[in-house]
Amino acid sequence: MDHIKAIAFDLYGTLFDVHSVVARCDEQFPGRGREISTIWRQKQLEYTWLRSLMNRYVTFEQATEDALRFTCRHLRLDLDSEACKTLCEAYLRLQPFPEVPETLRELRRRGLKLAMLSNGSPHSIGAVVGNAGLRGEFDYLLSVDPVRVYKPDDRAYLLAEKAFGVGRSSILFVSSNAWDATGARYFGFPTCWINRSGSVFEEMGQTPDWQRGGLDEMLSLFDSGAAGR
Amino acid sequence: MDHIKAIAFDLYGTLFDVHSVVARCDEQFPGRGREISTIWRQKQLEYTWLRSLMNRYVTFEQATEDALRFTCRHLRLDLDSEACKTLCEAYLRLQPFPEVPETLRELRRRGLKLAMLSNGSPHSIGAVVGNAGLRGEFDYLLSVDPVRVYKPDDRAYLLAEKAFGVGRSSILFVSSNAWDATGARYFGFPTCWINRSGSVFEEMGQTPDWQRGGLDEMLSLFDSGAAGR
Repeated sequence: MDHIKAIAFDLYGTLFDVHSVVARCDEQFPGRGREISTIWRQKQLEYTWLRSLMNRYVTFEQATEDALRFTCRHLRLDLDSEACKTLCEAYLRLQPFPEVPETLRELRRRGLKLAMLSNGSPHSIGAVVGNAGLRGEFDYLLSVDPVRVYKPDDRAYLLAEKAFGVGRSSILFVSSNAWDATGARYFGFPTCWINRSGSVFEEMGQTPDWQRGGLDEMLSLFDSGAAGR
Repeated sequence: MDHIKAIAFDLYGTLFDVHSVVARCDEQFPGRGREISTIWRQKQLEYTWLRSLMNRYVTFEQATEDALRFTCRHLRLDLDSEACKTLCEAYLRLQPFPEVPETLRELRRRGLKLAMLSNGSPHSIGAVVGNAGLRGEFDYLLSVDPVRVYKPDDRAYLLAEKAFGVGRSSILFVSSNAWDATGARYFGFPTCWINRSGSVFEEMGQTPDWQRGGLDEMLSLFDSGAAGR
C-alpha cells in the first residue's frame, strides 16, 4: 500500500452513525424512532440523487428537512415546526462509530493525509466533526456544495483529488455506502467498503478493492509489507 | 383544457402494474413474492438514478436484472440463471391496470395524441405494450435509450416534446411515480399524478397540477367546459 498517500472518507454512515438520531425521533414519536430513521435516511439519499439528476440542487440540510417532512406525512405523524427543527439538528450531532477516533489518529501517525468528502454542507460537516471533537484529525473537510451536485457524480469525487493534489490512484476512498463505493471506484479511486452489518454490495458493475467490518480493520492495509490488493 | 394537445404517459407503475410480477416470484420463491417484488422495484429505480448520475448507462433490462440479483442476494435466496431469466421476462408481460385500455381509447376518440415515455428499452416497451394488445393506442412509444440517461433527467422528458412537435405546455404528463411527476413538472409539463394507493407526494419543491385516483378519473379533465387547473 505504499502507493496510497491519502484517504478520503465518507461521513454519513461511514464515520458517523446516521441512526444515532433514533433516540431523538423516539422522544418526539415514542416507539417509532427506528422506523422514522430508516425511511428518513432512504428518502434523504433519494432526494440527493433525484435533485442532482434534475439539476435542482438544494443544500443537504434542506434535503434532510424535506425527507423528514415526507417521512412524517407518509407515516401520518404530525410534525410541528419545533419537532422538525429538533430532529434536523440531531443530524448535526451524530455519533462517530466507536472505533473511529483512534483509527483516524493511528492513520495520521502513519503519515497519511486525511479528508472528509461528504454530501453534507460545509456547515453540517463542520458541526458534526466539531461536535465529536475530531476537527484536528482531518487535513480537509470537503463538501459537494461548491459543485452543487451530489455523489456519485464524478464532480463530487474530483474535489478530493484536487484538494490532495495527487493522482486519484494514490487516494484511498472509504465508504460504508455501497453505491458511494461504486461511484468512487468508477471514478478511479482504490476503494475500501466498510461493511459493519453484513450487507451485500450493490450490483452496478463494480466490486470494492477491499471490504472490512470496521474502520479499525482497515489499518492492516497499511502494515509494512502488506500485499497489494 | 383546450390547450392540451397531447399526453405522455409513464409506463411502469402508471399504465402497467409492476407488482404483477409477484405471482411469478411466488412460483420461484413461495411466500416471498411481495417482498421480492417490492425490493426489486426499489433497487431497479435506484440503479437507473445512480447509473445516470455516474454516467454509466446500461439498458433497463440490464438494470432490472442487476436489481433482481441484488434483491436475491440481500434476501439470501439462491437465484439460478433459469429463475433469473424467468423473472426478468415477467417484466415484459406486466398487466395494465384494469381501467387503462378503455381510457386510452376514449382519450384518442377525443382527438388527443398519445405517447408512452418510459425508462424501458424500445424492446421492453414494445413487448409490454404489444403483449397487452395496446400498440394501436399510441402515436409514439418513446424510450430514453437513445439519450442514455433515465428520468428525471431533462433529456428524457425532451424526447416527448420533440416527438409531438408542440410546446411542452401543451403536453400533459401522467405518472404514478411522484418523483417522475416532480421531474416532469420542473421540465415544464402540466402534470397529473395518478395516486391509486393513497400515497403522499414527494417533498422536492413541486406539487402536481392534478391528482387522480385512477386513469379513468383523468377523463373529466377533458370534459367540455372543464375549468383550467
